[in-house]
Amino acid sequence: MADRTADEIFKEFKEHSIAEFFKKNRQMLGYAGKVHSLVTIVHEYVTNSLDACEEAGILPDITISIKGIGEDKYKVTVEDNGPGIPKNFVGKALAQILSGTKFHRYMQQRGQQGIGAAGCTLYSQITTGKQVSVRSTVSKGKSYSCSIGIETMRNKPIVSNMQDIENGSDHTGLYIEGEFADVKYENSDHGVYEYLKRTALSNPHVQIKLIDPEGKEFTFMRAVNSVPERPIPTKPHPLGLTVNDLLEFAQRSSSRKVSSFLLDTFARVTPNKINEIKGMLTQLDMEKEPQKLTWQDAEELIKAFSRVKWLAPDASYIKPIGAEQIRIALKNILNPEFMNVIERRPAVFRGGIPFIVEAAVAFGGTSGKKTEEGYEGSILRFANRVPLLFDSGNCAITEAVKSIEWKRYGIDLDMQPVSVFVNVSSVYIPYSGVGKEAIAQEDEIIGEIKLALMEAARGLQRYISGKEHMHEEASKYNAVMRYTKQLASDLSSMSGIDHAIIEKKLETLIAKHYQRVAKKEEGSGDAKQEQR
Amino acid sequence: MADRTADEIFKEFKEHSIAEFFKKNRQMLGYAGKVHSLVTIVHEYVTNSLDACEEAGILPDITISIKGIGEDKYKVTVEDNGPGIPKNFVGKALAQILSGTKFHRYMQQRGQQGIGAAGCTLYSQITTGKQVSVRSTVSKGKSYSCSIGIETMRNKPIVSNMQDIENGSDHTGLYIEGEFADVKYENSDHGVYEYLKRTALSNPHVQIKLIDPEGKEFTFMRAVNSVPERPIPTKPHPLGLTVNDLLEFAQRSSSRKVSSFLLDTFARVTPNKINEIKGMLTQLDMEKEPQKLTWQDAEELIKAFSRVKWLAPDASYIKPIGAEQIRIALKNILNPEFMNVIERRPAVFRGGIPFIVEAAVAFGGTSGKKTEEGYEGSILRFANRVPLLFDSGNCAITEAVKSIEWKRYGIDLDMQPVSVFVNVSSVYIPYSGVGKEAIAQEDEIIGEIKLALMEAARGLQRYISGKEHMHEEASKYNAVMRYTKQLASDLSSMSGIDHAIIEKKLETLIAKHYQRVAKKEEGSGDAKQEQR
Repeated sequence: MADRTADEIFKEFKEHSIAEFFKKNRQMLGYAGKVHSLVTIVHEYVTNSLDACEEAGILPDITISIKGIGEDKYKVTVEDNGPGIPKNFVGKALAQILSGTKFHRYMQQRGQQGIGAAGCTLYSQITTGKQVSVRSTVSKGKSYSCSIGIETMRNKPIVSNMQDIENGSDHTGLYIEGEFADVKYENSDHGVYEYLKRTALSNPHVQIKLIDPEGKEFTFMRAVNSVPERPIPTKPHPLGLTVNDLLEFAQRSSSRKVSSFLLDTFARVTPNKINEIKGMLTQLDMEKEPQKLTWQDAEELIKAFSRVKWLAPDASYIKPIGAEQIRIALKNILNPEFMNVIERRPAVFRGGIPFIVEAAVAFGGTSGKKTEEGYEGSILRFANRVPLLFDSGNCAITEAVKSIEWKRYGIDLDMQPVSVFVNVSSVYIPYSGVGKEAIAQEDEIIGEIKLALMEAARGLQRYISGKEHMHEEASKYNAVMRYTKQLASDLSSMSGIDHAIIEKKLETLIAKHYQRVAKKEEGSGDAKQEQR
Repeated sequence: MADRTADEIFKEFKEHSIAEFFKKNRQMLGYAGKVHSLVTIVHEYVTNSLDACEEAGILPDITISIKGIGEDKYKVTVEDNGPGIPKNFVGKALAQILSGTKFHRYMQQRGQQGIGAAGCTLYSQITTGKQVSVRSTVSKGKSYSCSIGIETMRNKPIVSNMQDIENGSDHTGLYIEGEFADVKYENSDHGVYEYLKRTALSNPHVQIKLIDPEGKEFTFMRAVNSVPERPIPTKPHPLGLTVNDLLEFAQRSSSRKVSSFLLDTFARVTPNKINEIKGMLTQLDMEKEPQKLTWQDAEELIKAFSRVKWLAPDASYIKPIGAEQIRIALKNILNPEFMNVIERRPAVFRGGIPFIVEAAVAFGGTSGKKTEEGYEGSILRFANRVPLLFDSGNCAITEAVKSIEWKRYGIDLDMQPVSVFVNVSSVYIPYSGVGKEAIAQEDEIIGEIKLALMEAARGLQRYISGKEHMHEEASKYNAVMRYTKQLASDLSSMSGIDHAIIEKKLETLIAKHYQRVAKKEEGSGDAKQEQR
């Protein structure tokens, strides 16, 4: 017999807001552990600043200051020279979870969820009870300031103390200041400094200044003086669509016929392709209104799509960092003895979502990690230029790195000063969690990373074995040279030719031989290093 | 100069529903890969059925049927004998993300988010365009059926075809049928069969029947005939509260004074403790209305809480599986040669959230995994009795297992038929992601699991070394026995006593000695095995 009936149980039924959900499950947003939580805050603000600067075509200049104000309690300020946030949007942009300019646009950006900054506001509020302070200049000379909190039960912003500042800053920008508890500044592999260092590595066009809790200033200098191309929204490729996607696009379409809807909405659809599709359809009439498409209609279209030979998605909408820029950045930050940078051609996952993998191995300099016994390798993971510091066990990049037999390439990640760099760029990064700390293990993505890494590793292999070989050749040369004196005097007494002449000739002969060998090897190393 | 101003950028600003978010990021809910996605569906429905049965005090009887209906397309039905869902709640319960009876209750349940079943409805809809069909009996003889979809833009349920069925079933229950594409049935370590097997292992009171796509039926028989105690909501412990939590409870309180609010709302608060706290306060007046508490007031209270000597949280609200039940289940499912089950005493994480760890090691039988070369160990992870099959790299349980030097205990997880079983029970499991596939790596939880595993491992160590020792003793015994004949005849000729008598006496003497040794070892093994 039942102790409680369904009616009794369902008296407890309630609806909850997404803000309530993340308040209770903040570890899912990256607020898990004090050091991690502080990095999450910096990460969210810096990510937003960089996206905004790039969309506005501004060379980013960001200053982060972190000040201790109590036990495990810090004041964090982030100031940028971006376009700012219009007054009427500032509340929602910073304190309404799941709202923003990014989620719905098919466009490569660092942020893509509309959760991050509102998560910071929530975290400040639940750990210190404070609102965040904001100052922004959207057009020169006109600034405003205000305080922003979040009404968690309804996931709505609370904006207070709104003040206009006439004759404000002479450039646009955003300044956010928040107080956070249950956070901690630490100089470790997973701390704020490392996060910013890696941000500089993947964004050589950015100037970043950090003022740490001891008041020390660190500046990661801009190494490249051009703004990356502004990201442009693109259209989805027919091969990446589900039936449901197609129907939703159709619902929102203002086209009057299915044919024009397809031409207008998706990439790579041409009148020729429309004719080709028409020939495959048995049920659906292309003259139908898109809003009236049924599931069966859409299914028929998706099936036809899969049989058309499409041009691959236009990857010009994806902006990788670029091999040259990565080289400049690696040199700037790691100053390695050798590096090999690989940029793969565009590929797709889930049928039609384009992405590009860039990978590099750097050897020597400050590559890798210093340990008590010597060195070990380090893996630098990036998604759309954003450093990924946590949840590495769950990430497509780690999976790809682990799947490679590095020792085959003469590389020992447990012993050598090697940094492995991987950046995945896409209009949609399939993060495994809301905290955006790892790339989901999509087979196509893992495969591309592996190919890039193997190519990068081969270059390093040649360099390392060249180094070993050169070392070997040098000792051979010295050994052979030791005999020239004896040989010269023997030959001199046998032939009667002057001892000094024979010795000179022998030395030149041997030196020439070893120079030729050395030159040949350098040459092959160089060629590989430049490969893209 | 800016390419685009803030005003231009913010023209794109939009708000999104949580359903839209998960539609785009379905991998975050566990819909990542076809096999994984099918397990997620079964997992969500079975979890809900078990929670509902237990809350209603019903011994669960669940039938899952999975039928192929196309390429990577299956019809899944789940039928239970639970309390059912009242007609007026069925839409929201199955198709509104973030609503339900569980999220806000401080009570141990398998589900705790209000996301799962609505996620299934969403997945059915986006992969096949179908609604899920539901039939439920809430009181005997009265049933209804309907179809349920989800309006993703607004995260609202769509209920259609609602029909009353008079003279319906003679017992209460819920039947759900859905069609899902982009899923796959597979007999693997990460498949539905394995998921249900593990569910049976951690829920010996449940009867589960699976009808697989080939029509084969598997029944995991009920091994225990009593319903686990019904979970009871408890009150939060003062030590687990943040300032913000305290303020929110105060806002919702109907008490007229802070003192009575504390007494009514939190566990372990007594009039004596109130007096103790009063003595510590310098600012706050305990007569104040709780609704008027400021952040400073609450901060003062939380500080005082941390200085009071509290009784530990009442762990009677946490229902572990129980060592005896785990033994029955392990025997039933793995039939091991040896097992050692440890139930730890209650502990707390984050200051005041109680939890209990149960761990076991099983050896032999069908423990571990068969591999081509022999065996390897397997790790069976559970949270509130729910099997965790995915994202193991990110889980507190895996972390604890990895941190133990098994070889010290004579255990080789790469070679031996060993199953390591861990169940974490709590009113709040800190999952690392929305998909609830891993327990966040809270230090206290990892620590407790480690202690439990080390204790369990010590028992197995004694058993294995005992086995080895017995093997050794047996060969010694045989070796010694070989000498009795010779020795008896030598002694006989020296003493004149009959050869046969001496031989008999010698054999008895030696046999007795080795029996005593064997008995002593068995004894210690037994004692350990029963340890709880």
